[in-house]
Amino acid sequence: MNKHIAAYGEIMMRLEVPDNLLLRQAEDLKYSFTGTGVNVAGLLAQFGYTSSLISAVPDNSIGSSAIGAIRRLGIQSNLVIKNDNNLGMYFLEKGFGNRPSNVTYTNRQQSSFNITGISKFDLLQSLEDIDVLHICGITLAMNQLTRDNVLKLVKLAKEQNIKVVFDCNFRPSLWGENGNQRAKPYYETILSEADIVIMSEKDAIQTLGLSTNKETKEGQLEALLPLVAKKYGINKIGGTIRTVQGSNHNVIKGYLYDKGAMYYSKAFDVDILDRIGTGDAYTCGIIHGELSNMDPQDTVTFSTASCVLAHTISGDTPLFDTDDIIKVINNEKNDIER
Amino acid sequence: MNKHIAAYGEIMMRLEVPDNLLLRQAEDLKYSFTGTGVNVAGLLAQFGYTSSLISAVPDNSIGSSAIGAIRRLGIQSNLVIKNDNNLGMYFLEKGFGNRPSNVTYTNRQQSSFNITGISKFDLLQSLEDIDVLHICGITLAMNQLTRDNVLKLVKLAKEQNIKVVFDCNFRPSLWGENGNQRAKPYYETILSEADIVIMSEKDAIQTLGLSTNKETKEGQLEALLPLVAKKYGINKIGGTIRTVQGSNHNVIKGYLYDKGAMYYSKAFDVDILDRIGTGDAYTCGIIHGELSNMDPQDTVTFSTASCVLAHTISGDTPLFDTDDIIKVINNEKNDIER
Amino acid sequence: MNKHIAAYGEIMMRLEVPDNLLLRQAEDLKYSFTGTGVNVAGLLAQFGYTSSLISAVPDNSIGSSAIGAIRRLGIQSNLVIKNDNNLGMYFLEKGFGNRPSNVTYTNRQQSSFNITGISKFDLLQSLEDIDVLHICGITLAMNQLTRDNVLKLVKLAKEQNIKVVFDCNFRPSLWGENGNQRAKPYYETILSEADIVIMSEKDAIQTLGLSTNKETKEGQLEALLPLVAKKYGINKIGGTIRTVQGSNHNVIKGYLYDKGAMYYSKAFDVDILDRIGTGDAYTCGIIHGELSNMDPQDTVTFSTASCVLAHTISGDTPLFDTDDIIKVINNEKNDIER
Amino acid sequence: MNKHIAAYGEIMMRLEVPDNLLLRQAEDLKYSFTGTGVNVAGLLAQFGYTSSLISAVPDNSIGSSAIGAIRRLGIQSNLVIKNDNNLGMYFLEKGFGNRPSNVTYTNRQQSSFNITGISKFDLLQSLEDIDVLHICGITLAMNQLTRDNVLKLVKLAKEQNIKVVFDCNFRPSLWGENGNQRAKPYYETILSEADIVIMSEKDAIQTLGLSTNKETKEGQLEALLPLVAKKYGINKIGGTIRTVQGSNHNVIKGYLYDKGAMYYSKAFDVDILDRIGTGDAYTCGIIHGELSNMDPQDTVTFSTASCVLAHTISGDTPLFDTDDIIKVINNEKNDIER
Amino acid sequence: MNKHIAAYGEIMMRLEVPDNLLLRQAEDLKYSFTGTGVNVAGLLAQFGYTSSLISAVPDNSIGSSAIGAIRRLGIQSNLVIKNDNNLGMYFLEKGFGNRPSNVTYTNRQQSSFNITGISKFDLLQSLEDIDVLHICGITLAMNQLTRDNVLKLVKLAKEQNIKVVFDCNFRPSLWGENGNQRAKPYYETILSEADIVIMSEKDAIQTLGLSTNKETKEGQLEALLPLVAKKYGINKIGGTIRTVQGSNHNVIKGYLYDKGAMYYSKAFDVDILDRIGTGDAYTCGIIHGELSNMDPQDTVTFSTASCVLAHTISGDTPLFDTDDIIKVINNEKNDIER
Amino acid sequence: MNKHIAAYGEIMMRLEVPDNLLLRQAEDLKYSFTGTGVNVAGLLAQFGYTSSLISAVPDNSIGSSAIGAIRRLGIQSNLVIKNDNNLGMYFLEKGFGNRPSNVTYTNRQQSSFNITGISKFDLLQSLEDIDVLHICGITLAMNQLTRDNVLKLVKLAKEQNIKVVFDCNFRPSLWGENGNQRAKPYYETILSEADIVIMSEKDAIQTLGLSTNKETKEGQLEALLPLVAKKYGINKIGGTIRTVQGSNHNVIKGYLYDKGAMYYSKAFDVDILDRIGTGDAYTCGIIHGELSNMDPQDTVTFSTASCVLAHTISGDTPLFDTDDIIKVINNEKNDIER
Repeated sequence: MNKHIAAYGEIMMRLEVPDNLLLRQAEDLKYSFTGTGVNVAGLLAQFGYTSSLISAVPDNSIGSSAIGAIRRLGIQSNLVIKNDNNLGMYFLEKGFGNRPSNVTYTNRQQSSFNITGISKFDLLQSLEDIDVLHICGITLAMNQLTRDNVLKLVKLAKEQNIKVVFDCNFRPSLWGENGNQRAKPYYETILSEADIVIMSEKDAIQTLGLSTNKETKEGQLEALLPLVAKKYGINKIGGTIRTVQGSNHNVIKGYLYDKGAMYYSKAFDVDILDRIGTGDAYTCGIIHGELSNMDPQDTVTFSTASCVLAHTISGDTPLFDTDDIIKVINNEKNDIER
Repeated sequence: MNKHIAAYGEIMMRLEVPDNLLLRQAEDLKYSFTGTGVNVAGLLAQFGYTSSLISAVPDNSIGSSAIGAIRRLGIQSNLVIKNDNNLGMYFLEKGFGNRPSNVTYTNRQQSSFNITGISKFDLLQSLEDIDVLHICGITLAMNQLTRDNVLKLVKLAKEQNIKVVFDCNFRPSLWGENGNQRAKPYYETILSEADIVIMSEKDAIQTLGLSTNKETKEGQLEALLPLVAKKYGINKIGGTIRTVQGSNHNVIKGYLYDKGAMYYSKAFDVDILDRIGTGDAYTCGIIHGELSNMDPQDTVTFSTASCVLAHTISGDTPLFDTDDIIKVINNEKNDIER
Repeated sequence: MNKHIAAYGEIMMRLEVPDNLLLRQAEDLKYSFTGTGVNVAGLLAQFGYTSSLISAVPDNSIGSSAIGAIRRLGIQSNLVIKNDNNLGMYFLEKGFGNRPSNVTYTNRQQSSFNITGISKFDLLQSLEDIDVLHICGITLAMNQLTRDNVLKLVKLAKEQNIKVVFDCNFRPSLWGENGNQRAKPYYETILSEADIVIMSEKDAIQTLGLSTNKETKEGQLEALLPLVAKKYGINKIGGTIRTVQGSNHNVIKGYLYDKGAMYYSKAFDVDILDRIGTGDAYTCGIIHGELSNMDPQDTVTFSTASCVLAHTISGDTPLFDTDDIIKVINNEKNDIER
Repeated sequence: MNKHIAAYGEIMMRLEVPDNLLLRQAEDLKYSFTGTGVNVAGLLAQFGYTSSLISAVPDNSIGSSAIGAIRRLGIQSNLVIKNDNNLGMYFLEKGFGNRPSNVTYTNRQQSSFNITGISKFDLLQSLEDIDVLHICGITLAMNQLTRDNVLKLVKLAKEQNIKVVFDCNFRPSLWGENGNQRAKPYYETILSEADIVIMSEKDAIQTLGLSTNKETKEGQLEALLPLVAKKYGINKIGGTIRTVQGSNHNVIKGYLYDKGAMYYSKAFDVDILDRIGTGDAYTCGIIHGELSNMDPQDTVTFSTASCVLAHTISGDTPLFDTDDIIKVINNEKNDIER
Repeated sequence: MNKHIAAYGEIMMRLEVPDNLLLRQAEDLKYSFTGTGVNVAGLLAQFGYTSSLISAVPDNSIGSSAIGAIRRLGIQSNLVIKNDNNLGMYFLEKGFGNRPSNVTYTNRQQSSFNITGISKFDLLQSLEDIDVLHICGITLAMNQLTRDNVLKLVKLAKEQNIKVVFDCNFRPSLWGENGNQRAKPYYETILSEADIVIMSEKDAIQTLGLSTNKETKEGQLEALLPLVAKKYGINKIGGTIRTVQGSNHNVIKGYLYDKGAMYYSKAFDVDILDRIGTGDAYTCGIIHGELSNMDPQDTVTFSTASCVLAHTISGDTPLFDTDDIIKVINNEKNDIER
Repeated sequence: MNKHIAAYGEIMMRLEVPDNLLLRQAEDLKYSFTGTGVNVAGLLAQFGYTSSLISAVPDNSIGSSAIGAIRRLGIQSNLVIKNDNNLGMYFLEKGFGNRPSNVTYTNRQQSSFNITGISKFDLLQSLEDIDVLHICGITLAMNQLTRDNVLKLVKLAKEQNIKVVFDCNFRPSLWGENGNQRAKPYYETILSEADIVIMSEKDAIQTLGLSTNKETKEGQLEALLPLVAKKYGINKIGGTIRTVQGSNHNVIKGYLYDKGAMYYSKAFDVDILDRIGTGDAYTCGIIHGELSNMDPQDTVTFSTASCVLAHTISGDTPLFDTDDIIKVINNEKNDIER
């Protein structure tokens, strides 16, 4: 039977100024519906899994549009409820060359997702046929209600033997002053329950308070991830090392700590069409590796290639099949496919 | 010297789904910056007056865009300050035929304008060269801070002999339950200070609690406006009677109560390109009538023609000269102008 | 439990030249995915029903897009299979005033839907929880395979006590020479099984070969529909009488023959944004009347108002709630809804 | 053998602000290439005639675009030469309802067409297979060179027994002060050579200096056209009477004076998509009537219906077949054509 | 007198998803009319030659649009006939970086071109003033009728001493299983009649069945082209060696076998705006070299630079002058030209 | 008090073909209002200075749009007057890779700016609060009136101790034959009055007639700028050395001669979104350096980084803050800013 992944996360409206223009120059916006959960559930649906989003949207035409959008991506919408009347939004002014992309959020604190208690969802029944639950550090950052929601949801999931995937995704601007300290206890609770974690060396050092005298990212990861895995009982910890060479070009290398060993992908040169959401494509690779019993080296290569390919897709949500990823891994530089 | 009108009001971002589409059908939005104050100050700038907006916008790229937009309309931006980081927004799904237009607001309570105290503006100095101050009932509806802001501002204005124009603009959905009762004391205070008021028969009955046994709108207005004018010491009270015949066609007739007499325009048949903001074009006509010493009958005719013409301009903010209004009054049905 | 309607029909790609341009004038097309089945299942999903489409699409990116599009409309996609590699398409040059709209089809005979045998669908299981099956005369017109498909499907449906709704929708250009004669036996077989039928006086006369000396459409319908209902054992027969007054304006009046009596709606004046698919909105009204036990007069009024409102929505597929229809029935000419 | 019509006239670039916006509101323009000659030659090509334009365009990418555009319309480009580097342009802000359309010209005096002497064209040879020459009063208005060009061209045409069609098209803003007086001798010379003339009652009165005590347009035309026809030896004089009821609606009635009698079409109610160039569609009807030996009553009906239909086509240049005109004449209010 | 090149080939509609989007993400398409014959005739028209297309299009608005489009490119349309009602189409999802472009064809077998026998064209007369005939392997691949058409046309051309240019353009997906074997006899017949051939090492090995133990493309070409030239009596055989480094960057090197010697261009680094149709720009270079008596080294350089420049033009059809190619050859890296 | 910079220069309308298309391929244009003065005043407004434009625009809707556009950029419009009815325009076909950008001007000689005498501006009063005046060699090139205007304006400025910044900007195509010789006396007069000059080695050699045997640009500048500075008494002379590597990539290095020494920035690799107007961003850097007392090395680095960043902004007018420039200087390759 088809594996079923559910993601718990906010649906946001992305409002992108077209043609690399600035907001002050333009009169048109392209909108789409996105969020870490949307991206993960969307790409896994493309991979052939059953996927659902657990979320709340406004009870108005914006909410209806959001639901239509995730259904279009192949995501099940049964666990998306309508409540109140605000949706989180962000404006994107895409960068170019030496100019970085600029993201401006609207007020998300009052969004339907961020004010809806987890008890509003009929979870006992709905979690039954779910195999994997994805949660994200951004949700932890929003407010006390969402933090409680995550903790309750993770507890329920573990009770039903659902695998928990946790993407640390620490956002300093959301946590505010002393954010790392305030975040630490929540992160520690979740990490203790999580099976798979997406984490950078910064998360280990700044949020968890670990330290190392290594200076390279690789060195720091190799020093710290084993400690994290051991302390919190985590099976797999992965992520990417990104070297920014401008808004149009990055170099990306994936890593995966699995059963005591560290695995790396090669470093990929990446031409960037759309940077946002590419980390979620990496996460999907790790989840697919887990569910299809890929070995760790293949998993980290597959996940990194998934991340690389995500940079060539417009919009936050990656849209490709596992076959397309294989071609990137095999370095097939294809001419037109017809 | 050129007369100077200042409007105190929120700048909102209007996000319009193009081509009469619904939000759930589309992927593009047209955005512009608007608000009653913007519309009034913008059209009066077109009429040749100096005009300013007193407002607050976010201190980010959205705020910069908003300031650029009002400057483009010819409005002075000296009294627009940057504070915090939210701008009010609304989505517009334009109606057609039997389908009404649909407006969906985002959370405005936390917008920069609605959380900025009037003391943040350097008003003592800036009010000096202002002749007319425009305020609007929507601002009264937002929260206690904005209500206090309006009261303080009106008090300051009267101290400096600035004429106060008050557009009642009662929005039930903003005031919520028992809104009329809660609004009444604020409305009464402002009305007592106002020189010119835009008011419908509903405002008189529902908010001010007056009553009449007349059944037609004309009858009710003729019964109630004299009472209102007398009680609150108001020079002029005007407005429009609108008969909706579908989203593309209305019939509009203006009225003006001035020095004890009621004046009406003829009823205009209106083809509608954009409905929103057309009431503000009426207000501008009344203000122009006042400042140019037009007689009451000419004023109501001019104001109504201004309102009529505003329906043929895309966007909230009317954009035409007084000459264009005169052509509508004269019923010149022009072929191409070249 | 929620009623479930399934429609069997082709998904087509509609390629619309924007801004009332002709194909030879433009360089852009707007595309969407449509078809009688899509329209019916889509609007019924909006009404709150569970709805599915039984269809076949190409096994390529066009097919994936088509599936995403119907999911976005709220339609279940479980019964849409991927097979071969062609999708039916049509180009739409929208009319204006005295200029009629022009539809140009591409070759549909080889489309995935029209070459896929009904046995490819796992129907025995899937029909179990379906309450209503919608089929359409266009499918009958395509080729021998689709005719056989319809006959088999209707037989299966009746075996499972599924109500069959048949929209005659006779298209002379698809049937070609002597089309009515060739079509008659198929139409008769389906009519014998159908519970609800959408039929015009032309269908009765030209396809079924009935005759009357009445000259008005109403007269002809009143003479012929009782004969049809009796002969084929049909519960309800409905449709619309449309008076074309140009591409932007029609007058529409609905009729419904139910248990021996004829019911009419009033005649609605209709401003037209998009003409195509409006008949399907009428059908949905009839189905909703049936499933919600509306009385015949209410049903014909509701269905006609649904048809009327569909003219104000861009695209083939109607998108509104039953509440929106009620407002049209009540002749609420609403100003902006906010 | 196919009849061949050549038009001598300027190609202009039309720069239209989309979506009924004003220039000050927008950031995009739609451009096309147009002019009375383009419109006449373009529609006659659609009617099945061979048609050519005699014109000059800049020797740069704008000129190349212009040539491509008229070729796309089916017009032969052999007589379009490249010279100098300016093309006439105009900006169009489309009207709506009570707001008239606004046309703003750029400097046309230095355009390639208006500075190119007629001797630059290899006319002796090229006129050989031409049957009809179309010229327009706008060309007469530009400058002394273009006036001389027209006179020489008409002389050459008459020497080769080419029928001359002259559209008076008097533009006061181009002729400037005392324009009618300055124009009169040129108009008289051309009228003396012309076989078919498009002329209004204003042309007869203001330019030719004729007078009448009739007050209706019909009365004036019936009084004056016989005098004009006799004085200058013209076979046919036609035109339209247009009643402007706003930017979206006109009433149009055609007239044709032919061999001593006056013929009228019925008055057509016209919904307007694009007003510009519709007079040229009338002219094409008259030319087609002449070349196909239609009787005068049919000619005026056909020409007026052509003019009516032209209002439903976006852009200056009418695009339809004679069949489409017949449907308008027969008052076929067609639903979708498929 | 101007040389005249005719190309025999299908006109297709290219439907491009804009902004590097996938079909499933978008709602708009840009359309244009293209095909190897269109591209070759279009660019040669730009070079200053007379050029014609021999083709068939549908007898509807799509066909009219296609004819308008090739006329806009400067191609004569006398030999394009209207027949039946289908046009070949393809959807283009443009690649980016590691993601290749994806082309999805609709059913071309029933297109007007592919069902129209060569006898429908009035060829005896029309071939008279033609100097060069271009044919393409894609036409050979379609069906038996098109294969016969090509054979007959080539025979006629040779009888009239028209030079035949044959672009092998073998498309495995069109020929299907055992395609090379089935294609071989047709290819051999055409090669025997052709004067100039565009052929890769794959064509020689896979279709013609030749073999070599060389491993580099250059080695294989140097081994095989002399054999091919000799066996089939071909004057010139050319092509390009393309190294794909992603969707945005290729390296291209041209080759030309002429009178016993092999000539190469330098390898050009190419930034890619639009990959499709660039091979046709190479062919045009070879034809121009032939007709203007360029020496072989100059010809291969010119042709490759033409191919390189074609990558910088949006759409299939290259649009530039020979002067623009010279600048690329001279490696002029120009700043803005003004 | 805030420093105030005024620029004297023409406002032009830029008409850009979108999506790297050629004019002959497209149907849409994006328009904006630009010019060296607009760019300089616009960017300095962003930097926080008060800035004004001294210019003339048409007295029609194009002129109103132009004024709205510069106000949107934050430029004061008090010194922009309306006169006559032409605005300079240029069409931009953006280059790609090996294809250079192509600019086609319309006739600018009759533009409002180029026919308006300087006496039309109320300068005596308005120059009072101006600190810096920017003028540009393009204005010198237009005609005798504009040359006189510049000379008079510079004289007035010097009388009021306003600093004069002169950008040589010699345009051969505007000066025509023997342009350098004709330009020399005007350039010499302005240089004698100027405080800061933007000049290349070509200006020194070709216009001023100086010579050097150095071959590198650096060598020539180091030889000639000291001579120029001494001869004409100029404080600072700056500019950029640009190596064009295609339309998408340049290398740029700035230089500044200040008080006897030559300073260089490092060479920046630049990805190009929009090339036009980038030189004006360099000038703004020099002016900012002067007004904020930056040292010469910092000034040249800041100015070059400003120029570099300007390549990443669509449109002629650079839009960024000094902070954004600092990030480029510090080589911060930022990922998304949120």
